[in-house]
Amino acid sequence: MTTPLLNDRDMEFMLYELLDSEQLLNRERYREHSREVFNATLDTAKTIAEKYFANHNAKGDANEPTFDGENVHQIPETKQAWDAFAEAGFLAAHYDFDEGGMQMPEIVLRIANAYISAANIATAGYGFLSLGAANLLRSFGSEEQKARFIPPMQEGRFSGTMALTEPNQGSALADISTYAEPQADGTYRLFGQKMYISGGDQSITENIVHMVLAKIKGAPAGVKGISLFICPKVLVNEDGSLGARNDVALAGLLHKMGYRNTTSTVLSFGEKGGAEAYLVGEPHKGLHYMFQMMNEARIGVGLGAAILGYQGYNYSLNYARERPQGRLPSCKDPESKQVNIIEHADVRRMLLAQKAYAEGAMAMCLYASSLFEDAETAPTEQARSDAFELLDLLTPIVKSWPSKYGLKANELAIQVLGGAGYIREYPVEQYYRDNRLNPIHEGTEAIHGLDLLGRKVPMKNMQGYALFKKTVTQTLATAQADALTTEFVAPLQQALDTLDDVTQTLLPQMARDVDLGLANATLYLDLFGRVVAGWLWVEQAVVAARGLQRENLHRDDDNFYRGKLQAARYYCEWELPEIQPQAKLLKDCNAVCFDMKNEWF
Amino acid sequence: MTTPLLNDRDMEFMLYELLDSEQLLNRERYREHSREVFNATLDTAKTIAEKYFANHNAKGDANEPTFDGENVHQIPETKQAWDAFAEAGFLAAHYDFDEGGMQMPEIVLRIANAYISAANIATAGYGFLSLGAANLLRSFGSEEQKARFIPPMQEGRFSGTMALTEPNQGSALADISTYAEPQADGTYRLFGQKMYISGGDQSITENIVHMVLAKIKGAPAGVKGISLFICPKVLVNEDGSLGARNDVALAGLLHKMGYRNTTSTVLSFGEKGGAEAYLVGEPHKGLHYMFQMMNEARIGVGLGAAILGYQGYNYSLNYARERPQGRLPSCKDPESKQVNIIEHADVRRMLLAQKAYAEGAMAMCLYASSLFEDAETAPTEQARSDAFELLDLLTPIVKSWPSKYGLKANELAIQVLGGAGYIREYPVEQYYRDNRLNPIHEGTEAIHGLDLLGRKVPMKNMQGYALFKKTVTQTLATAQADALTTEFVAPLQQALDTLDDVTQTLLPQMARDVDLGLANATLYLDLFGRVVAGWLWVEQAVVAARGLQRENLHRDDDNFYRGKLQAARYYCEWELPEIQPQAKLLKDCNAVCFDMKNEWF
Repeated sequence: MTTPLLNDRDMEFMLYELLDSEQLLNRERYREHSREVFNATLDTAKTIAEKYFANHNAKGDANEPTFDGENVHQIPETKQAWDAFAEAGFLAAHYDFDEGGMQMPEIVLRIANAYISAANIATAGYGFLSLGAANLLRSFGSEEQKARFIPPMQEGRFSGTMALTEPNQGSALADISTYAEPQADGTYRLFGQKMYISGGDQSITENIVHMVLAKIKGAPAGVKGISLFICPKVLVNEDGSLGARNDVALAGLLHKMGYRNTTSTVLSFGEKGGAEAYLVGEPHKGLHYMFQMMNEARIGVGLGAAILGYQGYNYSLNYARERPQGRLPSCKDPESKQVNIIEHADVRRMLLAQKAYAEGAMAMCLYASSLFEDAETAPTEQARSDAFELLDLLTPIVKSWPSKYGLKANELAIQVLGGAGYIREYPVEQYYRDNRLNPIHEGTEAIHGLDLLGRKVPMKNMQGYALFKKTVTQTLATAQADALTTEFVAPLQQALDTLDDVTQTLLPQMARDVDLGLANATLYLDLFGRVVAGWLWVEQAVVAARGLQRENLHRDDDNFYRGKLQAARYYCEWELPEIQPQAKLLKDCNAVCFDMKNEWF
Repeated sequence: MTTPLLNDRDMEFMLYELLDSEQLLNRERYREHSREVFNATLDTAKTIAEKYFANHNAKGDANEPTFDGENVHQIPETKQAWDAFAEAGFLAAHYDFDEGGMQMPEIVLRIANAYISAANIATAGYGFLSLGAANLLRSFGSEEQKARFIPPMQEGRFSGTMALTEPNQGSALADISTYAEPQADGTYRLFGQKMYISGGDQSITENIVHMVLAKIKGAPAGVKGISLFICPKVLVNEDGSLGARNDVALAGLLHKMGYRNTTSTVLSFGEKGGAEAYLVGEPHKGLHYMFQMMNEARIGVGLGAAILGYQGYNYSLNYARERPQGRLPSCKDPESKQVNIIEHADVRRMLLAQKAYAEGAMAMCLYASSLFEDAETAPTEQARSDAFELLDLLTPIVKSWPSKYGLKANELAIQVLGGAGYIREYPVEQYYRDNRLNPIHEGTEAIHGLDLLGRKVPMKNMQGYALFKKTVTQTLATAQADALTTEFVAPLQQALDTLDDVTQTLLPQMARDVDLGLANATLYLDLFGRVVAGWLWVEQAVVAARGLQRENLHRDDDNFYRGKLQAARYYCEWELPEIQPQAKLLKDCNAVCFDMKNEWF
């Protein structure tokens, strides 16, 4: 039994029904496209995913990359997959036509990439890192830098990385110690070590473009002294040909629990006199620039977590439909036929929870992608700015909620399979191991909690927050107007009111004592995330209810929409009420953890 | 940094303060022992754990057992550890003196074994399986069977297994298809396959005694047709010498996510004419007998989960005390010294939650062990019977709550370490992988939910349930009487009332419609488990409060007791309120999952 890649019907629902992406065709940038072009892009991605990525998801896990002191070795399927991805144009598809791209909208590419990650998230990682690095250059690099590095990254000859973390600094970027010495020719020499750099070395491209955070000697302390540099593994001559090996060395590979075919590296810069590097943009603005890549990557992490949750759901659903075991409690005849385990109420609970988490997380990440798109191409300045503010507010949630609940879905997928779920002969344990990374990288939950409550909510007079409330209120009005969805109004309204109540209590508290006020920020992140997920489930229910009222509905569509309604019901009745005890702790500014002393542990 | 094995101060607290095990010395069976003997037993276990088990916990994970078609190969440290465990007498310590044992109480041995499992749970597994198999023989075997098999199991020359599950039957034992053909000489021949048999083959003992469930040809259908057999890997002559190889073959090893140095096997019985086997006790009573081993094993699984949670807590606590990173939100000076991460409120939350889960789970399993002891050796018939009933009620919880929350603790340990938590260079990811097994084996959560609500609670006119309520009520009275613990009375009382309210609502519902009434049994299991854990935290707080009032208290003890109080506070304020939304779903007999249809997924 292989795991189906996502669910085509659901992807169609998300793209065209929930997010109404067909209206993108009215925008100038997409005038030459059509729904057929979008679908053909998705088909290409699916074909590549099935042919070049799915074939080595387990193999790449069982045979992780090795380092012989000189070169990294990976199973050959890794490079074949990379090449297929590059040849199909996915490293350039989002660029404008005149940049060598296909001018494809963000949301279509996110779904295309979702298919590829669903097949093999570890190998897919190289592509997404490289896309992010190139986008950073595209936004902030000089014309000369762009001309030299972007084309080979579009072609897949070069890949890219983001090199932020150091052995002594993970979350605390302010304290990085990698430094840059300016040279007479305008270049810099980098010295220092970076750690947990994904794709920091590999066996698939002839060069790697590291986007490195470092401090120029004499720079101000803290985040205000961080600059961004391009530091290629191999120097690139002006004509684009490869020059000497740069002074960036792989100090070693790290051995992860999952995500194994994405190398995780320790890189040493400047052990032989300094790694040649080029300043991007202005000095000391590196962190600000890097946030573009991080924010993109954060949606990507959320989406990856959603996808892994989705794949575990797919596999365990098929398993539950085929595995006979036991009988219902009411059946006392030991000679009667066993039922398939999907008939057991608790298995249905575990499947429905997975559906709620996986499809909810997918909706959240694709909604974020649509905001990303709107921030760039919406027809009015107001619409663009609103989308930007809303995305800025929601980014910590889009990264964190899917990471937490996607993992929870994978835990349930294992449980549905029982003993089979725990052995490597079945794929679900790998999804679980892979997914455990997502609540950590691109900012831990704690970091995002502080970002959300400490910065994003109060920012600009709570503009993003107000936009979110307005958006939910619109959904409530729509839900109220349709008999099929009125049941969802009260729980969502209550959740929104609870969030608002908590927020209004916490903000003045933070002003009085910021340490205590932010002490439970991770809890706030989870509560806010649940409200966003709840809203997106009601939104999905509204769209499904509309679908159900179409004439001559195909039986499959009828089942699909009813499944959406039932999952929304599950979310509203089983998950949303859990925010109430959280809200109480937050409103009380509960200090039990805050007050715990080191010596009491 | 190595992980400390458990926490000696806490084990002393559990053994002598919380469970007052010194009073065991008043019982006839333990008259010749002393507190010093108990402590010496624990010291021996610790020494062996440190010397022979801790040395290959990571190595056994990285080099899992292999099978060449003939023999199983394991790293040599496995057998060395087994031999040291056997030589120290731990395979016989609980037997009476006249059985060649040390007449040691259950609770002391549970803690001794906890130290060993803390060092290496996978290698420790062989000992516990063997102890359980021998105990089953001791209780139900004939004198001849006992004489032939128990001594070599006590010496460690033979090990034991429990062989229940089959490729097609995991939770549904009623449907096993392994069958037994009676022979003229009174023996049987077994035919069939067993799967997920831990220790089903290995490289450490000269023989393996499989305790096998099978149906005698012509037996009634269902559980009433299951018998228990002894089926040794190698036949044993009457004089105890080894004979021919029996017809039990290792069909293959399974490859687990964790717990890797415990082999998980597929065994084929009777491929060459039938595996010689000996009926234990009477025909068709096999499942009843096996429940003794399963119930023992269930406490063992809970304890294993608690221990893994404990080890993750220990490691992440030390890490948090030593790892500098970032500053408090109130600190705006980027040149100030970084704080150790234990200073961050969210890290303290994650440590306090781990403490609450790990020490709470440990208290739960050791309390169960004390009930196990009391059921055997309490001075009055009433006390023995009460202990038995209470343990019988609580067994599903003692197995399940630690398995769920011990794993949650390990998830948090990874999160405290951040990126370091996700790589195999640190031990916490292994604890997490190891612990994922525990909610599955010895009955999944769903099985225990059904057992608790469907059988254990209503059983014998709710006698066990009434005893539990009485026990909690006593704790409430004690807590009320001490100013240091009155704060815990209201939350625990509310939790108990909630449990009672839910239970009284569900029982008539089950009578009306058993399928719907039991549909949310897993949720009930979790709610009940939280109440038991909450009770044990208040009980620990009561004991800690008493300790705080001792004169001339050492500073370390003062800190220790205050930590217990703060963890009880955490549990009462952060965890117990979460049962309220669960209670609502249960009381409403919420049917969202029950009503979900196969075709809607």
